[in-house]
Amino acid sequence: MTKNTMLETLASGGTALGAWMMLREPLVATVAAQLDYDYVCIDMQHGLQDFGDVTAMLAATSGGGATPIARTPWNEPGMIGRLLDAGALGVIVPMVNTREEAERAAKACRYAPEGFRSMGPVGAGVRHGSDYFAKANTEVAIIPMIETAQAVGNLDDILSVPGVDTIYVGPADLSLTLGLGPGLDNADAKFTEAIDAILAGCAKHGVTPGIHCSPELAAKRFEQGFRLLSVGYDFGPVTAALRNDLKTARAAVTK
Amino acid sequence: MTKNTMLETLASGGTALGAWMMLREPLVATVAAQLDYDYVCIDMQHGLQDFGDVTAMLAATSGGGATPIARTPWNEPGMIGRLLDAGALGVIVPMVNTREEAERAAKACRYAPEGFRSMGPVGAGVRHGSDYFAKANTEVAIIPMIETAQAVGNLDDILSVPGVDTIYVGPADLSLTLGLGPGLDNADAKFTEAIDAILAGCAKHGVTPGIHCSPELAAKRFEQGFRLLSVGYDFGPVTAALRNDLKTARAAVTK
Amino acid sequence: MTKNTMLETLASGGTALGAWMMLREPLVATVAAQLDYDYVCIDMQHGLQDFGDVTAMLAATSGGGATPIARTPWNEPGMIGRLLDAGALGVIVPMVNTREEAERAAKACRYAPEGFRSMGPVGAGVRHGSDYFAKANTEVAIIPMIETAQAVGNLDDILSVPGVDTIYVGPADLSLTLGLGPGLDNADAKFTEAIDAILAGCAKHGVTPGIHCSPELAAKRFEQGFRLLSVGYDFGPVTAALRNDLKTARAAVTK
Amino acid sequence: MTKNTMLETLASGGTALGAWMMLREPLVATVAAQLDYDYVCIDMQHGLQDFGDVTAMLAATSGGGATPIARTPWNEPGMIGRLLDAGALGVIVPMVNTREEAERAAKACRYAPEGFRSMGPVGAGVRHGSDYFAKANTEVAIIPMIETAQAVGNLDDILSVPGVDTIYVGPADLSLTLGLGPGLDNADAKFTEAIDAILAGCAKHGVTPGIHCSPELAAKRFEQGFRLLSVGYDFGPVTAALRNDLKTARAAVTK
Amino acid sequence: MTKNTMLETLASGGTALGAWMMLREPLVATVAAQLDYDYVCIDMQHGLQDFGDVTAMLAATSGGGATPIARTPWNEPGMIGRLLDAGALGVIVPMVNTREEAERAAKACRYAPEGFRSMGPVGAGVRHGSDYFAKANTEVAIIPMIETAQAVGNLDDILSVPGVDTIYVGPADLSLTLGLGPGLDNADAKFTEAIDAILAGCAKHGVTPGIHCSPELAAKRFEQGFRLLSVGYDFGPVTAALRNDLKTARAAVTK
Amino acid sequence: MTKNTMLETLASGGTALGAWMMLREPLVATVAAQLDYDYVCIDMQHGLQDFGDVTAMLAATSGGGATPIARTPWNEPGMIGRLLDAGALGVIVPMVNTREEAERAAKACRYAPEGFRSMGPVGAGVRHGSDYFAKANTEVAIIPMIETAQAVGNLDDILSVPGVDTIYVGPADLSLTLGLGPGLDNADAKFTEAIDAILAGCAKHGVTPGIHCSPELAAKRFEQGFRLLSVGYDFGPVTAALRNDLKTARAAVTK
Repeated sequence: MTKNTMLETLASGGTALGAWMMLREPLVATVAAQLDYDYVCIDMQHGLQDFGDVTAMLAATSGGGATPIARTPWNEPGMIGRLLDAGALGVIVPMVNTREEAERAAKACRYAPEGFRSMGPVGAGVRHGSDYFAKANTEVAIIPMIETAQAVGNLDDILSVPGVDTIYVGPADLSLTLGLGPGLDNADAKFTEAIDAILAGCAKHGVTPGIHCSPELAAKRFEQGFRLLSVGYDFGPVTAALRNDLKTARAAVTK
Repeated sequence: MTKNTMLETLASGGTALGAWMMLREPLVATVAAQLDYDYVCIDMQHGLQDFGDVTAMLAATSGGGATPIARTPWNEPGMIGRLLDAGALGVIVPMVNTREEAERAAKACRYAPEGFRSMGPVGAGVRHGSDYFAKANTEVAIIPMIETAQAVGNLDDILSVPGVDTIYVGPADLSLTLGLGPGLDNADAKFTEAIDAILAGCAKHGVTPGIHCSPELAAKRFEQGFRLLSVGYDFGPVTAALRNDLKTARAAVTK
Repeated sequence: MTKNTMLETLASGGTALGAWMMLREPLVATVAAQLDYDYVCIDMQHGLQDFGDVTAMLAATSGGGATPIARTPWNEPGMIGRLLDAGALGVIVPMVNTREEAERAAKACRYAPEGFRSMGPVGAGVRHGSDYFAKANTEVAIIPMIETAQAVGNLDDILSVPGVDTIYVGPADLSLTLGLGPGLDNADAKFTEAIDAILAGCAKHGVTPGIHCSPELAAKRFEQGFRLLSVGYDFGPVTAALRNDLKTARAAVTK
Repeated sequence: MTKNTMLETLASGGTALGAWMMLREPLVATVAAQLDYDYVCIDMQHGLQDFGDVTAMLAATSGGGATPIARTPWNEPGMIGRLLDAGALGVIVPMVNTREEAERAAKACRYAPEGFRSMGPVGAGVRHGSDYFAKANTEVAIIPMIETAQAVGNLDDILSVPGVDTIYVGPADLSLTLGLGPGLDNADAKFTEAIDAILAGCAKHGVTPGIHCSPELAAKRFEQGFRLLSVGYDFGPVTAALRNDLKTARAAVTK
Repeated sequence: MTKNTMLETLASGGTALGAWMMLREPLVATVAAQLDYDYVCIDMQHGLQDFGDVTAMLAATSGGGATPIARTPWNEPGMIGRLLDAGALGVIVPMVNTREEAERAAKACRYAPEGFRSMGPVGAGVRHGSDYFAKANTEVAIIPMIETAQAVGNLDDILSVPGVDTIYVGPADLSLTLGLGPGLDNADAKFTEAIDAILAGCAKHGVTPGIHCSPELAAKRFEQGFRLLSVGYDFGPVTAALRNDLKTARAAVTK
Repeated sequence: MTKNTMLETLASGGTALGAWMMLREPLVATVAAQLDYDYVCIDMQHGLQDFGDVTAMLAATSGGGATPIARTPWNEPGMIGRLLDAGALGVIVPMVNTREEAERAAKACRYAPEGFRSMGPVGAGVRHGSDYFAKANTEVAIIPMIETAQAVGNLDDILSVPGVDTIYVGPADLSLTLGLGPGLDNADAKFTEAIDAILAGCAKHGVTPGIHCSPELAAKRFEQGFRLLSVGYDFGPVTAALRNDLKTARAAVTK
């Protein structure tokens, strides 16, 4: 089976950097997978991709070395199963706030007896090898999102769920549920304390902490202890470039 | 009918700056159309879009002020007609090397008696107004590409074709046909002379010269006399950002 | 942020008339949005559109004045969030029968602390402006469907849920759950009483009543007190025209 | 092989009435095919469909009795072959103005030795039967469009081309090339004389005359002698209904 | 309304053989529907199809005699309703383990008062006839999957749910939940006993037993008493042929 | 740049075996590319794929070792350029009957000065490397089809065109133009003589002969001297399996 190099990197104490895909262009996923990213995540929650786009984008990552993962729109076992069958080697699950929700997410990623994932990995079998079934329960990453004050309050419950070896912080939603404004970071003590609590919980339970990040924030998050960091994007940079390049050119032709 | 503000700008001596779309994501076209670009060009020749993508991207430009145009894959009247019917207010036609080819391109964009465009502007009628037919022959831009040594040799023939009020230089192909390497610019005298000849021909025939450009080259091209300049892109910036942001982040987490 | 003119009209005591889209053709959505409809609703429940079609249709409404909304296939927060992120300014949620279900629907449409909508309005931010987040909790319409006998029995519970300022009656399903046949209207007292109860409940709770309607029924529903009325359709009229025009023509050529 | 009932009707002196599809919704094609239309034509020239849409729409006509045909965007053998391979039992070819163009269109529809259509009817073989190859050269309808003054001048040349048993008049383009305005009909003598000339040419060469028509014009065209009449549409009626139903409803709620 | 010939066959004691579609190619569905299969099942759970593909594939079965059904990705009423609205005449529902889950599945397939399916069968009405509503509650097949040890323990609860007249065994998942390896069959006594229990439960409750099968296993399953057997596939055979034909050819050219 | 291993194999005197894709399922292309095929050809002429499908299928071959090529629907430089830009490392061009047509096909595959291919290999650059432009003129395979009696009569003209190092025989169309029935092979002397003439012409001009083949015919073709043989298919095998497996199963359950 294709190795989950993202998990290997994390297991060996390394830091996994990821590209985050919101646009529906498989070629961009190919570009990201060929660069030295540790993972490419296709975002079905806030991105524009529907399931058919995801299958095309997963296929488009085939030639590269990055581990393909996906964010499911919601904690729904039907979609989680389809993403894994299509070849995602990990699923980020939003809004996991309780132990029950964490178990629901984790079990959707595991074949019995560890979970209730249904057998039929058509795309995954082709892409990842004939021994896919035998290894899937250890190679597939289960990544619940910790992104609410409620989840922070239930950390022990969530982080002790079998199979939950990695979590992903959503700083914007975490901020909102703490009564703050959205953003990738926040100087408010409530935010900082929540982050600290999450990191402490992860340390206690041997779980790798990850977070939605940016190139600018990478150093800070790394120093805090996060080891799974999304730092490459498609929509933001293309928007910024369209804006900035117009400005540059307009200045050049307006004299 | 929707005004072709790109042509208005050019007619009043202004400079039209454009965004050039190669990826299949309509939302990026929306972003470009909302910025202050004079035109958004959907590139069916070297871009990834098929006709269905073009219709979606043309629709996605509706709310913005930029004039939507398209590059046809080849000088084929069937596709030129479909692009116009879908709502493009101009068509860039590659590899126009002779008077006959220029006439073929121009007539495909004009209803009889000026040309042989067939009547049936379903999407254009909805998007641009019930007087579309009455005004289309003056509002639709015909933009042949001058991009070969052969075309430079036939400049008078091409630039005197009725309806050809604007042309678009493809510097990479022009370079190749001059025996040089590809690129947006070239210091070789053969390239410079070809550019000068094109600009002189345009001046002589009252045709607006345009060129495939970049933010960095905009000042130079403007000073040379070009007035239609593509300066905003999608694929290049997203690729550069994915590469650079990874580099930044990798450095930040590797200490 | 783009104003939700549909809600403005309702707030000022006006009546909002809507176009209801069941076919997968964005150009028809453009046509509807350009007419004087107050809203265009893309129906993912009984219509043929999948999420990718919805994004294309929402984009296609950009140039027009109608407020774009969508009906979610079911009361699922994942899909509700995606519809809003794509730019719908309101969501009609089918089969809301209890207070718990109404809260689930309402909270899926609201950022914390009012609800649990997750942050990431990629398409909505582009289409509706950079202040989208700041205003979304007041500009996005939450429209539960009242369409079962059970819901009529739970009216106070449902209509008192915060954020539920508008409801939408599904007359066909309401009829079925009352033991009657399907249809937009029904003369049976059970149906009339249910309608009266809904209108009374709305009046009591200050909620605007809406209903699936037709041009023919508009006067009656308006007089009853409904203020949100879907009256324009795509599938029915095209089917009727294909049938009637054939009949007319067949008669004309058969003599 | 599936019988080409449209051609059978014409061969027996009957009149074939058609539905004309411009929108990308296969279900509408199903509706048309189930009604008593003699043919359903999918319009790739002025309609919105790309080739993938055409294959879906041809598949969607399978259960009905109407003969599925298509209009190719242009007189290009590659696309004509693909439309026939996909299962169209006839192709309307726009802008056929000379004998050479008529031969090019006709031969693209016929296997050698009558033409140069290439062998490989994957979809057509499935839909129309294992004897498809044996019968295709007689069952597939070749329908050039006569829609320019030039074509009217070359009628004998065009109508005597082997395989051209039916033609289709494009009244709007014909009007334009005669120096008149667009429309399905025109009272100007130049238009009437052109129509008469076409009908006379068809009578002389034993060719069935067809024309782009409407329910209102069907009687007139039938009396003139046309026997292939497109009378059912999708885009026009849905647009009219959206406009009219809004008007009706607005009046009903504005008192 | 189109007859559900699959259910008729089962009701008369016959055996229904099915084709199982995992690839996104409607033409393959057409091929299957034209052969003598009793049903064609489009698999949205482990197949690659998204909802748009399912509508295309359902349309593609129109000309054939096989009953079109679909497997929903999960026991979700929203998707079940959409599949039925699109024209599926039955839905296979995975992972039905309790009476509550069986009722949820069954009621999603039935209009009130038997269930809570919402009214609006746009595609189904076109494909299956104007009396669709009147007959749908008897003609639509509800087919829960029995595929876990838990379900086997709850057989009486599940099989006594009104509307559950047919079930479908998933042997691979059943094996996994019994602690065995995946596969269509298993010699282990635990598997055999579970199969026997299911068959006994079906006999007791008058429910038709079905199972995911293969041509090779058909005789055994038939003798055991199964009467709904999927035996035709797309993905497996094409993969086997690509492998075997290469082997044959390689040997032929390597001498 | 990615090596064109198909051309390398041929250059070293080896035989290249290919998989031929007619269905629109990228996963099948992945399967073929992972097996030991020398090339995977996506057939846009008689297959069902449109350009968007081709880009998805080319992307889907990325992980495997087979060289991806495509058949263009017709000898049109616009489409040939797009296929190469998308990443095809060779193009099979149907119906090349004259030297002029061969030059048109060959030059569409070569950048100036050898041809007139336009610069802009977006997908090809990503997939095949940053030195793509430098090597494309030698690594891209130009494969005209010899498939008519006319082409056999013009062999010296066609085979001496620069860049034409490989040709591909279409036996079915060749048979038709010789007045015979269609098929992969034909015992008639006219067919045999044409094949012999093609092989002799190839030997004389140092061109590699290829042919549309089957596993059964591979030995014969190899012995005749053909070195490029398509032997793996998707549509035929899946159709055969659906038919045969039903027969097997029906027999098993009918006793």
